[in-house]
Amino acid sequence: MMKKTNSRDKIIEVGAQIIHRKGYNHTGIQEVLTAAGVPKGSFYFYFKNKEDFGLQIIDYFTEFYSQQANLVFDDQSVPPLERIKRFLEGFIKIFESIDFTCGCLIGNLAQEMGDLSPAFRIKLKESVDIMTDFYARALKEARQRDDISARLDIAETADFILTSWQGALVRMKIEQSARPLKNHIKFIFEFILES
Amino acid sequence: MMKKTNSRDKIIEVGAQIIHRKGYNHTGIQEVLTAAGVPKGSFYFYFKNKEDFGLQIIDYFTEFYSQQANLVFDDQSVPPLERIKRFLEGFIKIFESIDFTCGCLIGNLAQEMGDLSPAFRIKLKESVDIMTDFYARALKEARQRDDISARLDIAETADFILTSWQGALVRMKIEQSARPLKNHIKFIFEFILES
Repeated sequence: MMKKTNSRDKIIEVGAQIIHRKGYNHTGIQEVLTAAGVPKGSFYFYFKNKEDFGLQIIDYFTEFYSQQANLVFDDQSVPPLERIKRFLEGFIKIFESIDFTCGCLIGNLAQEMGDLSPAFRIKLKESVDIMTDFYARALKEARQRDDISARLDIAETADFILTSWQGALVRMKIEQSARPLKNHIKFIFEFILES
Repeated sequence: MMKKTNSRDKIIEVGAQIIHRKGYNHTGIQEVLTAAGVPKGSFYFYFKNKEDFGLQIIDYFTEFYSQQANLVFDDQSVPPLERIKRFLEGFIKIFESIDFTCGCLIGNLAQEMGDLSPAFRIKLKESVDIMTDFYARALKEARQRDDISARLDIAETADFILTSWQGALVRMKIEQSARPLKNHIKFIFEFILES
């Protein structure tokens, strides 16, 4: 049983990495299995088909993202707006370490698969809602502390932070620099959160 | 000669439409030629290879975008900030008419090809600079009229408007609604341009 679980996780992890860089449609199942060092037969033991594989990768990534986000957003020793800033700045360091490539797997799949697969669209929407909720929770705390303007609607603001960040990540890929990410943080903080 | 020019334009137009919806790597040359009703031999008369075809599509789209943008941004009877709003709201109507699919071809290709092809990356960066410049020119006029805060840097603001709009377009595709686009316009205007 242990071995089977490990094979599934290995396929998912390696598949997520390849799809993150090359896209879903441009990635072949055989390519993933070869990179994962797993025989072809096992793929259909764990996944109904390629789409099912893609959907399970979204779940895997959302879980991983949530664990990382909790580390930052659960830290009550840091004021809530500062948690948002630390989270975004943490991403800058991660992207710096991979030469500003890849972007956000969820954003990438939303762009690539949003029009092509209703199953992807629904799953990606769920993932985006989870990602947005980290910002919403921090903003709620900021509101209680009177740290943000009464003009800001929490749900709309949380959504705008994530949505505009996704755009900055796309720009990052063609500029190969942190500039769009830093510009995002500047506008979100100087003009919206600290306005 | 006329016929040859028409064949090239036809391949580019049809190719842009298919790639806009399905992505570059997921689109086959034969598929484009069949849809365009053009024999295969003519492809290599106009394009060195698929990458060259993709790069010419970016030029074609950037030219088309610029023509449309000029119609709005050259209208001196409308105040400059209002031109920005009209331009963005015009896109909402366009996306409404195609059920909030496709998104921005340039943003899509930046996401898909930014890491995979240096030639695409350079060409997409040029395109994005041209798209950003429409906002920068309007903001410059707004500055001269004292319509925007002295705190706003024109280049950074123009960049943030376009970059965050690209993110909103990705979100639009999974929500199949104008909500993210409207939220973008709200934040850009209420908190940044009219702050």
